[in-house]
Amino acid sequence: MAFESPLFWPAHVKNGVLYVLDETLVPEKLKYIRVRNVKEAVAVIRDMKTRAFGQFLVVLYAFLLELHYKGDLLKHLEDVAGQLNNSRPTFPFAEVTKIIVGAVQKASANGGDVHAAVAKTVHGFLAGIRARRLQRVQEIAEVINDGDHILTHCNVSGELAMAADIARTQGKDIKFYATETRPYMQGAKLTVWELQQAKAFVTLVPDNAVAFLMADGLVNKVIIGSDRSAANGDVANKVGSYQIAVLAGEFKVPLIVLTQPSRGVASGKDMPIEIRDENEILKFNGKRVFASKVRGFYPGFDVVPHALITKAIAINAGL
Amino acid sequence: MAFESPLFWPAHVKNGVLYVLDETLVPEKLKYIRVRNVKEAVAVIRDMKTRAFGQFLVVLYAFLLELHYKGDLLKHLEDVAGQLNNSRPTFPFAEVTKIIVGAVQKASANGGDVHAAVAKTVHGFLAGIRARRLQRVQEIAEVINDGDHILTHCNVSGELAMAADIARTQGKDIKFYATETRPYMQGAKLTVWELQQAKAFVTLVPDNAVAFLMADGLVNKVIIGSDRSAANGDVANKVGSYQIAVLAGEFKVPLIVLTQPSRGVASGKDMPIEIRDENEILKFNGKRVFASKVRGFYPGFDVVPHALITKAIAINAGL
Repeated sequence: MAFESPLFWPAHVKNGVLYVLDETLVPEKLKYIRVRNVKEAVAVIRDMKTRAFGQFLVVLYAFLLELHYKGDLLKHLEDVAGQLNNSRPTFPFAEVTKIIVGAVQKASANGGDVHAAVAKTVHGFLAGIRARRLQRVQEIAEVINDGDHILTHCNVSGELAMAADIARTQGKDIKFYATETRPYMQGAKLTVWELQQAKAFVTLVPDNAVAFLMADGLVNKVIIGSDRSAANGDVANKVGSYQIAVLAGEFKVPLIVLTQPSRGVASGKDMPIEIRDENEILKFNGKRVFASKVRGFYPGFDVVPHALITKAIAINAGL
Repeated sequence: MAFESPLFWPAHVKNGVLYVLDETLVPEKLKYIRVRNVKEAVAVIRDMKTRAFGQFLVVLYAFLLELHYKGDLLKHLEDVAGQLNNSRPTFPFAEVTKIIVGAVQKASANGGDVHAAVAKTVHGFLAGIRARRLQRVQEIAEVINDGDHILTHCNVSGELAMAADIARTQGKDIKFYATETRPYMQGAKLTVWELQQAKAFVTLVPDNAVAFLMADGLVNKVIIGSDRSAANGDVANKVGSYQIAVLAGEFKVPLIVLTQPSRGVASGKDMPIEIRDENEILKFNGKRVFASKVRGFYPGFDVVPHALITKAIAINAGL
């Protein structure tokens, strides 16, 4: 693959320290936060220093940071899993941590090397995910046609930019519109930057301009990611995805969604939606922007019903 | 009326100078810009120091600022009208300026006092508008029911806040959700402040949260203004209004729109939509927010088709 976005794999372990890309500083700076234990791992997740796929990476790598524990390692890692599971309500971290804890329990019961079991499980799991994500990048490139004008929302952690790079090398002339994605501005900060890194042509639009773009025929395809999938095909993704999906249906613009394994939830109704701290909408780049004592309401996600999804590109093979 | 918002009548003439509320500084400061001639009037319009109804006020008052002209006053005021007409593409200023110029032409043809004719026409016109807007505030209060949770977008120049004040004194327990209205943040800056001045309960939400609010039953009514109306009932309003209207239709939430006289255009298709400078989306509070050299696209308005409007509250009686 010609181009790999830093957002595709935004965390790595080196010499017992986890380095996590601080996505809140992108594109101004590419700075990696040093994470030394599960407490710090929970903090980078909760503070949204990394998002979506990056948070799954942190959850997995966090187990490696706790292998130095001198007491009952099984019990300790169960506690680690609990802390990670509770870090954000909408994400099914428990579905991942139970795989790691299960491997530890098995090794422990068989009298095996618990440390080696954890390392092997984490690394094996990640290698599988990496291979399948790279495969999905190819699949995304395949659904992109010459002449497409593609709207995207929030950020798809590298995959869309890498697919854009492949599509370009395939000779496809394409154009992107990225929503700002208030209040965190992931579209303006991450997606625009990533697509530019991939030499794609991208235009930033206000979240308010989606109906305008579709009614004027300025976009002919929508590609978004998702943070969680249900068994019936509903997905939770960054708030605003639902209204874009309704508009895509209204204006007959195909909606393509990148999905993941759907463990644990039957439908979108079963996914708890995290309500973020109101300061995240009342502040901009860390500063309070409005003088008045207003209350804010910022649901982090919304649920796109499966009926509105034209095509899901899943990553669940074997997971 | 108990409460009059500063945004209801954001400009006035005193000692030959036009004072225009600088709405870009609200709510931090209530500062009035001194406007002394048509050139400065066009500048406050183009720079969006005042918006919507405030711009109509500036257009009308601007004629009073040019009465000191020593040459051919009719010809000069025709030129003034031309400058005002061209200040923004989406607004039908020409429909207003031709009334003033017509009165001047008539006085001039009859050998009357041209200065007096201009002053009388402008003041008479404004007195009529004021009376009808105050009447509309009452009508808005009537469509607000006890227990309503009302979503609004952008800013309705005083009328909604004043209606909220009346509704409260009528014993109605109501709640507002205001969208931020990126990129200018009129919702966050103006609407929130105004509603708070009227002692109404208001919560700020991201523009992305509209489908979430409606799907969860958190709003049961939408009230928005409009900047221009067509004969078939289509309206142009701040970009984002169209998608809110589509969502209101989808979720069966009544959409109430404040409209105006529909001179000159048969339908929404006939309204030119102003594309604002891309810096208005690339900057926030005057500072460039994204490091990369991205292009921005910011259509200032979009058109809400009449079929999506549940009830229009017009101001056109007698106008």
